[in-house]
Amino acid sequence: MPVEGYLLKEEDLVPLSMGAALLGTGGGGNPYIGMLRARELMRKGAEVRIIPLEALADDAWVAEVGGIGAPVVGVEKIEEGGECYRAMRAVEETAGVTVSAVISAEIGGANSIEPIIAAAMAGLPVVDGDGMGRAFPEVQMTTYMIYGADVAPAAIADDKGNVVVFKEMVDMFWLERFARDASVAMGAGAGFAVAPMRGDFVRRTAVPGTVTQAIEIGRTILEARAKRQNVVDRVVESTGATLFFTGKITDIKRELTGGFSRGHALLSGVGDWAGSEARIAIQNENLVLWVDDKPVVMVPDLIVNLEMDTGEPLTTEILRYGQRIAVIGLPVHDLMKTQRALEIVGPKAFGYPELTFQPLEFRTASK
Amino acid sequence: MPVEGYLLKEEDLVPLSMGAALLGTGGGGNPYIGMLRARELMRKGAEVRIIPLEALADDAWVAEVGGIGAPVVGVEKIEEGGECYRAMRAVEETAGVTVSAVISAEIGGANSIEPIIAAAMAGLPVVDGDGMGRAFPEVQMTTYMIYGADVAPAAIADDKGNVVVFKEMVDMFWLERFARDASVAMGAGAGFAVAPMRGDFVRRTAVPGTVTQAIEIGRTILEARAKRQNVVDRVVESTGATLFFTGKITDIKRELTGGFSRGHALLSGVGDWAGSEARIAIQNENLVLWVDDKPVVMVPDLIVNLEMDTGEPLTTEILRYGQRIAVIGLPVHDLMKTQRALEIVGPKAFGYPELTFQPLEFRTASK
Repeated sequence: MPVEGYLLKEEDLVPLSMGAALLGTGGGGNPYIGMLRARELMRKGAEVRIIPLEALADDAWVAEVGGIGAPVVGVEKIEEGGECYRAMRAVEETAGVTVSAVISAEIGGANSIEPIIAAAMAGLPVVDGDGMGRAFPEVQMTTYMIYGADVAPAAIADDKGNVVVFKEMVDMFWLERFARDASVAMGAGAGFAVAPMRGDFVRRTAVPGTVTQAIEIGRTILEARAKRQNVVDRVVESTGATLFFTGKITDIKRELTGGFSRGHALLSGVGDWAGSEARIAIQNENLVLWVDDKPVVMVPDLIVNLEMDTGEPLTTEILRYGQRIAVIGLPVHDLMKTQRALEIVGPKAFGYPELTFQPLEFRTASK
Repeated sequence: MPVEGYLLKEEDLVPLSMGAALLGTGGGGNPYIGMLRARELMRKGAEVRIIPLEALADDAWVAEVGGIGAPVVGVEKIEEGGECYRAMRAVEETAGVTVSAVISAEIGGANSIEPIIAAAMAGLPVVDGDGMGRAFPEVQMTTYMIYGADVAPAAIADDKGNVVVFKEMVDMFWLERFARDASVAMGAGAGFAVAPMRGDFVRRTAVPGTVTQAIEIGRTILEARAKRQNVVDRVVESTGATLFFTGKITDIKRELTGGFSRGHALLSGVGDWAGSEARIAIQNENLVLWVDDKPVVMVPDLIVNLEMDTGEPLTTEILRYGQRIAVIGLPVHDLMKTQRALEIVGPKAFGYPELTFQPLEFRTASK
């Protein structure tokens, strides 16, 4: 990509949201409503430029925004649209800086689109990258936070006009706690902005190129469908993913507790996996995949459920009994696999003390 | 009082906290720890001037501060001391104003002392008045809020260094909700400051003279004890209270739910009330007193439990089985008895739809 980046086109939005749904590894919320909002803004003339990390000056201020709340709520509680924008403005005011670009907290799911909406409203470019290279359920689980971003001031805004600023925070875990509580009070769906970050810091800590990556994944899916190819195979080939299971959902459990969707899905194998069983643990996102009780993919690597026939990436809140799905695994970016990162986003951090992270490798499918 | 007010003396602190405990009507938290903090600051040279409402210029900015949280926690979770001060500074910064005086949200209980600590730290005077003339459990239950104070920006601070600013709030009920949640995350004990208020507004809406009133009540109790008089009788005489019941606690129930202490006390009559039963409903404060199932005092009027032998005002968290107490009632200030006020602090607002507020009159004791 040239350093001046490229203008996002209306026809990029559907592929982007589809690719983001895949990178959401089951979470991050459904990007559909946000996609409609972004399209509406673009049709009204808003231009959003996607710029590479290299385009950021050392001393430029970058706003990181995203929705916060339980994805299962996002389906029914339609955002007003300006939540992230208002949170971003509150953070700018409190910090006394003016941001010159917006970046996503997480490329996975709805938060791929939220920065685009905020940027369109503010007339700012969006940085091609994010803080996860996927989706994760908690505020501290970004590469920015892991590598030492300021934890305050951050802000949260709802659809009614409430804005809460986290002005001074002891650490990122306190920020997560206060923000989570406020998001629950806001109806478990709100716009969140963290402390503005300097350009040099963002260049060093963001997962690069993920907006473009999401658009390309989406295009692959749509193209394969249009050509009546096997979508799952095409996704596996083009992304370097591994196919780990094909099966039918025999049990799905989701509970909304403490602002999160928690639960699991049980699968009974079909095709090459006939006779096998699989289990996927969920906290907003897919956390661990076990096949016949053996853990085969685990956080921070990506576990993605695709509908077998259409290749549609399935978010956890739309999984249902009887669905036939293909479960693929994708390696997460190296920034998420350091010792420091694994303390925050490894299996132990998610409550699996018995699991030690075994990284996936890029390869094509094999059983 | 002259318009320049008077300097608070170290020997005023014990009477103040005792009178505040009485005006706390069972709630507002125990002022003991705060009293020690204030004394420490005064011994180190801090001067705190108590000024009358009339001393406030129209365009002076006044900070309203107080602790927020469940009183039962305050007994065990010792505050760091600077919580209200930090919340006040955060509000000043966010609002872009400099305050010239501090006033109490509620004179009842610990919040009689919190403004004194914040004022001592900031080198500011304390206004002789408060927003309740008693104690109430929720943020919107001040005369300031009832009569239209700005609901934002407000701020909350804890003992660890966390500061959360409620930058834009839809209304006072949302402020209560966000502040309550944050106080729970902070361990159910934190310092709170609401939006700075103008002097003319405070002169019109504050309950006047309550700091001095609390000191005088405390002095009455201490003097009666020193003279071996019947303390309960002396309090009733000097305050115009009514004695409504004397009895022994036969059952006491308190639960910490949603950041509040809720429960009730059951009493079996002694002396003039032998053979009668009484019940007191509690939400941090005493809400309603029933004698033989008849409601005789109810919010917003004050229901106060005094230990029969010593006249010690008893906060709800130290009530215990077998205690012998005198229950007195005191009329609340007229500002709390308007239609507008009763919608916020009347019996219906506390979940008693069957009760219509019947105001007490100032009179001396009779059965």
